[in-house]
Amino acid sequence: MHGLSGVTMPSKQTYQHIKLVSRPYGKAVPGNFELSSLPVPDLTALADDEVLVRNEYLSLDPYMRGRMSSARSYAEPQELNTTMIGGTAGIVIASKYPGLKEGDHVVGQLGWSEMGVAKGSALHRVDPEKAPLSAYLGVLGMPGVTAWYGVNVLLNAQPGQTLVVSAASGAVGSVAGQLAKLKGCRVVGIAGGLEKCEYVCNQLGFDACIDYKHAQTDKELQILFSAIIPEGIDLLFENVGSRVFDASLAQLNPFAKIALCGMVAGYNGTPEPLRNASKLLTMRATLQGFIVTEHREIWPQAIRELTGLLADNKLQYRETIARGLASAPEAFIGLFNGKNFGKQLVQLGAD
Amino acid sequence: MHGLSGVTMPSKQTYQHIKLVSRPYGKAVPGNFELSSLPVPDLTALADDEVLVRNEYLSLDPYMRGRMSSARSYAEPQELNTTMIGGTAGIVIASKYPGLKEGDHVVGQLGWSEMGVAKGSALHRVDPEKAPLSAYLGVLGMPGVTAWYGVNVLLNAQPGQTLVVSAASGAVGSVAGQLAKLKGCRVVGIAGGLEKCEYVCNQLGFDACIDYKHAQTDKELQILFSAIIPEGIDLLFENVGSRVFDASLAQLNPFAKIALCGMVAGYNGTPEPLRNASKLLTMRATLQGFIVTEHREIWPQAIRELTGLLADNKLQYRETIARGLASAPEAFIGLFNGKNFGKQLVQLGAD
Repeated sequence: MHGLSGVTMPSKQTYQHIKLVSRPYGKAVPGNFELSSLPVPDLTALADDEVLVRNEYLSLDPYMRGRMSSARSYAEPQELNTTMIGGTAGIVIASKYPGLKEGDHVVGQLGWSEMGVAKGSALHRVDPEKAPLSAYLGVLGMPGVTAWYGVNVLLNAQPGQTLVVSAASGAVGSVAGQLAKLKGCRVVGIAGGLEKCEYVCNQLGFDACIDYKHAQTDKELQILFSAIIPEGIDLLFENVGSRVFDASLAQLNPFAKIALCGMVAGYNGTPEPLRNASKLLTMRATLQGFIVTEHREIWPQAIRELTGLLADNKLQYRETIARGLASAPEAFIGLFNGKNFGKQLVQLGAD
Repeated sequence: MHGLSGVTMPSKQTYQHIKLVSRPYGKAVPGNFELSSLPVPDLTALADDEVLVRNEYLSLDPYMRGRMSSARSYAEPQELNTTMIGGTAGIVIASKYPGLKEGDHVVGQLGWSEMGVAKGSALHRVDPEKAPLSAYLGVLGMPGVTAWYGVNVLLNAQPGQTLVVSAASGAVGSVAGQLAKLKGCRVVGIAGGLEKCEYVCNQLGFDACIDYKHAQTDKELQILFSAIIPEGIDLLFENVGSRVFDASLAQLNPFAKIALCGMVAGYNGTPEPLRNASKLLTMRATLQGFIVTEHREIWPQAIRELTGLLADNKLQYRETIARGLASAPEAFIGLFNGKNFGKQLVQLGAD
């Protein structure tokens, strides 16, 4: 195997990937995953329109927990003994696709793997001069577009409204809250722990942040909510579900809108029940569950606007970066314990 | 006091009404209500535009439980020691309103009372030749319009879709299901007990009806749902909440729509928690809580269409009629135990 012009090739003849080898009951555990090696594909064997990519970053996201289950959901379950799905950012090593050439930076869905082959049409070229490559998996990627869609389309945030966003320091929540601030909303975040809450208020510029870990009981959580949001919630960007969602429901204003983006608290198979669902009726709430990949038509506008805001220094973001593919399972499991701070990534080829 | 031409006047100088005298904790009890007498108003004392009405029917509806509480809801709580609110149908006894005259039949909001005075503009004249007076409180009144709005506007029912409606034999559910059948939906009702289910299938023409009382556990209920609705739920007209709502959530199809009309199971202060709320996300559901009195713009069209369907014998309905105002508290309390069958009314002046 020979290096191509301008591109550093891996010196080894194999690359690593991680397969799903068993489905979790309850929490995902390291034993659900298996690290193994594959031979680097023969470049001459690429089919027409195919591209070989060396991944530099792997995105870890809560939705992956759903794919690990065999339960009916918005996507087919991940098959066992195949490479775990996931978004990636990397560099083109070889291309038989006219629109991409060696050395191009691309994002795609190559999974938990150091390399991968994809149809060129399934990859998007990105410009590492405009933003760090990793940003295209976060603030300028699926999480950023998710926030943009929820705040602008579903919630249609207006000046003077109070917007609450859970997992406020996370990849989606942090962008959602900042976009709502730019729209003139009062924005209250919900996060776990003082450090995240301080970041949300001081770095992201939210008006307030509720530390849900500060409340021992549902009653105490409710007291916090009514103290911090006495005016009630007009718009709710929900990423967590469970008792945090429940506390927000109790505080809804008439005609509140809810963008239901995530129920992370229940992804590990033990959802806590909702006790305040009657508020959806008494407050005549509108709730919309959504998956942003089903709304491709808004991606170009969303990414254009997010890129502009980032260039103008109007969007802050934070990343937690694990090093080396082997660290992916533990970092993924940590998502459900709030161990990440901002966007969780794995930097590949770094071990 | 003298009888007016063509109108039989009450022979007594007083009339009865029922006041709310205490707020319930949990279930409403008879002691929350007090029956007392008031002097019949001096007809000459009617102000301009006022009308004196003798009520023939009082409508009993689950929403009244909400008004009995002091909790924040879509309407102000009912004040203590005032006449219980409620829809009524009756006959004009005296009028200083140009648009109404003695002998006219009217519906209004005169509450749990044998008589009442209202602004003429707050009353609607109805035609007892077109339908029995009581129908204007049910199939041609608020419950019928609620069903019409949910099925046509919020759910926008289309041929071939599967629509599930809870409290299927009730005043709202029975109309909702029949309207959906006329739209070409597969309609599955949920009701309590074999008698109601047989009525729903044989008289109302639904495709199937699930007797939720037949299931001892949530698991059994879920098995019933998946057996009767293997194709999944596209449209849900929810009147009950609690475990019945939860079982429907588990059966939602992608992009399901939910019209959240009632949560009767929780109105007595002990809502059961929702365990399947994550389906709202994974199925990308749209949920809308609503109160039909906030959508006055659709009432004329709804009532026109419902009147036409009734005249064409395309709408069946059933009433449970309690006799005499004194029977109202017990009949009202029965609403929450499923004791009524169809629209619950009180016929006044019948004791």
